[in-house]
Amino acid sequence: MATIFTRIINGEIPCYKVAEDEKNFAFLDINPLAEGHVLVVPKAEEDYIFNLSEDDYVSLQKFARKVAKGLKEAVPCKRVGVAVLGMEVPHAHIHLVPLQTEADLDFRKPKLSLPAEKMQQIANRIAEKI
Amino acid sequence: MATIFTRIINGEIPCYKVAEDEKNFAFLDINPLAEGHVLVVPKAEEDYIFNLSEDDYVSLQKFARKVAKGLKEAVPCKRVGVAVLGMEVPHAHIHLVPLQTEADLDFRKPKLSLPAEKMQQIANRIAEKI
Repeated sequence: MATIFTRIINGEIPCYKVAEDEKNFAFLDINPLAEGHVLVVPKAEEDYIFNLSEDDYVSLQKFARKVAKGLKEAVPCKRVGVAVLGMEVPHAHIHLVPLQTEADLDFRKPKLSLPAEKMQQIANRIAEKI
Repeated sequence: MATIFTRIINGEIPCYKVAEDEKNFAFLDINPLAEGHVLVVPKAEEDYIFNLSEDDYVSLQKFARKVAKGLKEAVPCKRVGVAVLGMEVPHAHIHLVPLQTEADLDFRKPKLSLPAEKMQQIANRIAEKI
């Protein structure tokens, strides 16, 4: 069965998309740790990031770098933090989180819940910078 | 002034090294979140990971993948988690942390303090698998 991320990539489930290329896709985390929290995923349905082929892995990391650079321009932050945990969805994904302090990359924090309009504005702002 | 990581790479400060190539270096975090917590750093002294040149960035990510694969063989875990926060030392570094659950990648947890002999054993075990 397709993972939830594959269904998002295929447009079966809506998302706030920020970027896409041949092999990769980026969209806002619906339960963000901070405004502009993005998930970067390979289109290949691989559970564990380090099991991607080297080509797909390098493609994903280069794409993540491009997204992170745009994200930092679009969302005021000291830097963009990175996390790969990946146990809740069996489809590799990189979290890119705008950080003011290291404590902002804390997955036990209560997540933000932003109105749809605000999410769309953030996604558009990031997409413009990528 | 050289960063603490440059001084480690240059052998001026001791470390539990697990791997090295032309452009990158990996060693145990001295205050690990879990046994086998590794730091992967570029030899280039760049503060922010996404400011590395594309070549250096790709080299670092490929090296991190190699280290992560060895780490997963050497240290029993469900998978190797990844984090880049990087505000405490001005030299880009990737945390690779053996995870049993997502909660293991929590930088607010009390850090482990392992005896030197144990740290050396872990480093040797990982080095052998890389």
